[in-house]
Amino acid sequence: MNGAESLVRTLLNGGVNTCFMNPGTSEMHFVSALDDYPEMRSILCLFEGVVSGAADGYTRLAEKPAASLLHLGPGLGNGIANLHNAKKAYSPIVNIVGQHSTKHLKYDAPLTADIEGLAWPVSNWVKTSENSISIASDGAAAIAASMGPPGGVATLILPANTAWGEADGPAETVPSIIPESVPADRITEIANLIRQNKNTVLLIGDRVMGDEKLGVQVSKIANAYGVRMMSSWYAAKVRRGAGMPMYERLQYAVDKSLKMLAGTQHIIRIGARDPIAFFAYPNKPSRFAPPNCEDHILVDLHEDIPAAIEALLEELEAGDTEPILAPSKPAKLPQGDLDPDSVWMAITALMPENSIVSDESVTASRMAGPITQSARPHDWLHVTGGSIGQGLPVATGAAIAAPDRQVFAMEADGSAMYTLQALWTQARESLNVVNVIFNNQSYKILEIERKALCAKESGPQSDPMLSIGNPELNFVDLAKGMGVPAKRVNSSESFVKELQRGIDEPGPYLIEAMIS
Amino acid sequence: MNGAESLVRTLLNGGVNTCFMNPGTSEMHFVSALDDYPEMRSILCLFEGVVSGAADGYTRLAEKPAASLLHLGPGLGNGIANLHNAKKAYSPIVNIVGQHSTKHLKYDAPLTADIEGLAWPVSNWVKTSENSISIASDGAAAIAASMGPPGGVATLILPANTAWGEADGPAETVPSIIPESVPADRITEIANLIRQNKNTVLLIGDRVMGDEKLGVQVSKIANAYGVRMMSSWYAAKVRRGAGMPMYERLQYAVDKSLKMLAGTQHIIRIGARDPIAFFAYPNKPSRFAPPNCEDHILVDLHEDIPAAIEALLEELEAGDTEPILAPSKPAKLPQGDLDPDSVWMAITALMPENSIVSDESVTASRMAGPITQSARPHDWLHVTGGSIGQGLPVATGAAIAAPDRQVFAMEADGSAMYTLQALWTQARESLNVVNVIFNNQSYKILEIERKALCAKESGPQSDPMLSIGNPELNFVDLAKGMGVPAKRVNSSESFVKELQRGIDEPGPYLIEAMIS
Repeated sequence: MNGAESLVRTLLNGGVNTCFMNPGTSEMHFVSALDDYPEMRSILCLFEGVVSGAADGYTRLAEKPAASLLHLGPGLGNGIANLHNAKKAYSPIVNIVGQHSTKHLKYDAPLTADIEGLAWPVSNWVKTSENSISIASDGAAAIAASMGPPGGVATLILPANTAWGEADGPAETVPSIIPESVPADRITEIANLIRQNKNTVLLIGDRVMGDEKLGVQVSKIANAYGVRMMSSWYAAKVRRGAGMPMYERLQYAVDKSLKMLAGTQHIIRIGARDPIAFFAYPNKPSRFAPPNCEDHILVDLHEDIPAAIEALLEELEAGDTEPILAPSKPAKLPQGDLDPDSVWMAITALMPENSIVSDESVTASRMAGPITQSARPHDWLHVTGGSIGQGLPVATGAAIAAPDRQVFAMEADGSAMYTLQALWTQARESLNVVNVIFNNQSYKILEIERKALCAKESGPQSDPMLSIGNPELNFVDLAKGMGVPAKRVNSSESFVKELQRGIDEPGPYLIEAMIS
Repeated sequence: MNGAESLVRTLLNGGVNTCFMNPGTSEMHFVSALDDYPEMRSILCLFEGVVSGAADGYTRLAEKPAASLLHLGPGLGNGIANLHNAKKAYSPIVNIVGQHSTKHLKYDAPLTADIEGLAWPVSNWVKTSENSISIASDGAAAIAASMGPPGGVATLILPANTAWGEADGPAETVPSIIPESVPADRITEIANLIRQNKNTVLLIGDRVMGDEKLGVQVSKIANAYGVRMMSSWYAAKVRRGAGMPMYERLQYAVDKSLKMLAGTQHIIRIGARDPIAFFAYPNKPSRFAPPNCEDHILVDLHEDIPAAIEALLEELEAGDTEPILAPSKPAKLPQGDLDPDSVWMAITALMPENSIVSDESVTASRMAGPITQSARPHDWLHVTGGSIGQGLPVATGAAIAAPDRQVFAMEADGSAMYTLQALWTQARESLNVVNVIFNNQSYKILEIERKALCAKESGPQSDPMLSIGNPELNFVDLAKGMGVPAKRVNSSESFVKELQRGIDEPGPYLIEAMIS
């Protein structure tokens, strides 16, 4: 058995059985090793940003690590943007990057690059394997490292000779780290704080937002003591919809978030980070919390979040309190002119239970939260690190992980163009993804930001840098070119019709929603 | 004047008047500053890999630095693959990357990343500007740093507050470094070596390959003393075609290159690197030179290459020797079935004088060199660093730099899918680029490499990872979706017809050549 085969078997032993890839010459032994292991599902992507984004989307749904296979420094480079998002989503990814053979590295061959240097900014763990014997144990260590807590990207660099040389066999699974328990006195302290202070916010992070049970428990505490329950603007996965825990969500706009937190005296973080503005603006603060607000941590990201919440619930005797849940409302189908809100109304009405929404609709999502709050229960996947080009790949990976669920990729036109190659993988794998492209022919968010930052609405040289309408993109043609059927729509009625069709028919579909 | 404006003016003062960009919020002040400076040509790209590749293509033709503008760590990440190629092409690029404001950086905002860490592997110079006063002088230093010699990527990181804060004005241009002269005794030594040894190869690098005059001078020396003139397999730009200096080109295949250099006793490098295999293979050497061959350097990359060649020519009194030039042959139009060779025959026959060929046709280029050798004089742009996704962006940038010349982008189907968004910029800027896509529905190069490395021709799990025919890509639809007219062809006759049409009509065109 060669090193590559020992690595494949180690991955399988560790429960990693899905590998998104865009391989090259240096990875050929790994690819060839797959021939004997059909239980490793291998998914080809035409671009590495799709590989890394799909791996991220997969892990968010599968709740176990995905593997990715990339080709040398440039292949890793193309994957970086979505690895950045994955890192910020705490997504466990075993990111395997091929490298020249150890002997070849000392020559400056064209593809030689500092792969470790490129990997560190988006990884929690990086290792170049030394030889074909060690690659299996390095693989086992990478799996464990990817799982955290919190999870993240573990980049394992695979020199070609570590793949083609002789190996001893697969390595033993490395146990992942057990999250630390929160000390009892911290639970007591936080409980006292909640009992005594009404101007308190329970700020929940990704782990709670993605888990109905945890959300319900925090909601009971908030309701029992009349404190607020809030979340950051984005999360890896949010369990939401009618009957799911409801809480306030901080906003992208700094002024809105400052207003939401005005008067708050205590923020108690429950697996959440200090709430920070996405961007800085002259004369606006970076932190959303008021200057005199006290920051407390019930449970940190590396600690045992479910146990801490359970303990706090008991301490506060709130187990029998009713949680605040989102109401179910009769859905209304939109009519007339098409705009972002009518798109979201249609999604709310027609979305099957347990759908998955991968949202990168940027300015078109302004009202998405409130409108879809009463839809059937679903999971919502945000762009976690601000890297554009996440939406379609994450939807693709999510659909691989959850083949029985309907996936919606809600995409801005500008954002869609970064990693549109995801459509090809959707077609190839017959994934149930309805891709909705909001085509407004501009980088609308940048128009807003230009005004906020530079106090100007227009300019002769800058206007064209924010407009993508010349030439007009046609997403129907683009989708067809990659084997995905598609339709452009201009009215609410036709959007509803095409949305129903996309849901009803198996495989991917794309609807180009023309909005202004 | 704010820092952004001082930077724009500094760039213009330094002769940098073309900026390829995909900006975001942090770069809005730079974009707004452009409104007062229409002499800075700003070119929007829908993806950062197009930005960096187009900047590379531009500098290869314009022979002066291009500017690129990218958005934070992830934007840089998307640009890395083609910056890697640019670095290996010694292309001077002033690569401006936005960053959060200095005060915002200490918070872990979603887009926060180690930009310097990401930049170093693809840059010769990296600096984060400290404030709005220093950004202008940092810009001037970046221009000088990008010019080398040899040239390369200078990454200037622009925190938002250095753009929006008050500045003093543009900075003085920093003189670029004058290449070192080669000592006279080295010229004498190399001249003696050439006089005394027939089994000698003059190995030329990028600077010579891109310059007719330098190529002719080296060719005179080679012809006068009966030694061989050779080049590496790839270069930033090669001046070639009928009447241009002719020399042997080392090959991608290790065995072929070893055979070409067998028996060579001396390699004299003229601005060239030690010839190295693209990839390593078990039981094959990395270096192409025979083990007992002596390696000599006439002139290194940071030295004055034209002066060294001139001095050697004088020392060897070869100025009046005839150079070996490529012959002009009557071009034959291909007929019948379409294959890569018939495509190259058609290109050879119809290519106007001074055309530019951006070649990323991978396996389809096997016979491209010999076939096009007798075409009208032209410039050939290779993939210098092995990063896939260079061809279309480099063609786009080259067409910006040389608007009066016909550009051909010769692309493999797989490679085209990495940075296809370049087509949109071609349409937007009405660039005279004929894009030829060789559609063979596979990663053919990987089929060859799998066989070379793993000694196998097929496998149930690995085959699908090398095949991109399911679903079939349709490049006509893809091109139309980005505003580029396109046609699919299946015969030599129709290829010739569409090629002529693409050359005759202004603006970009795409021909999808169906080959097997």
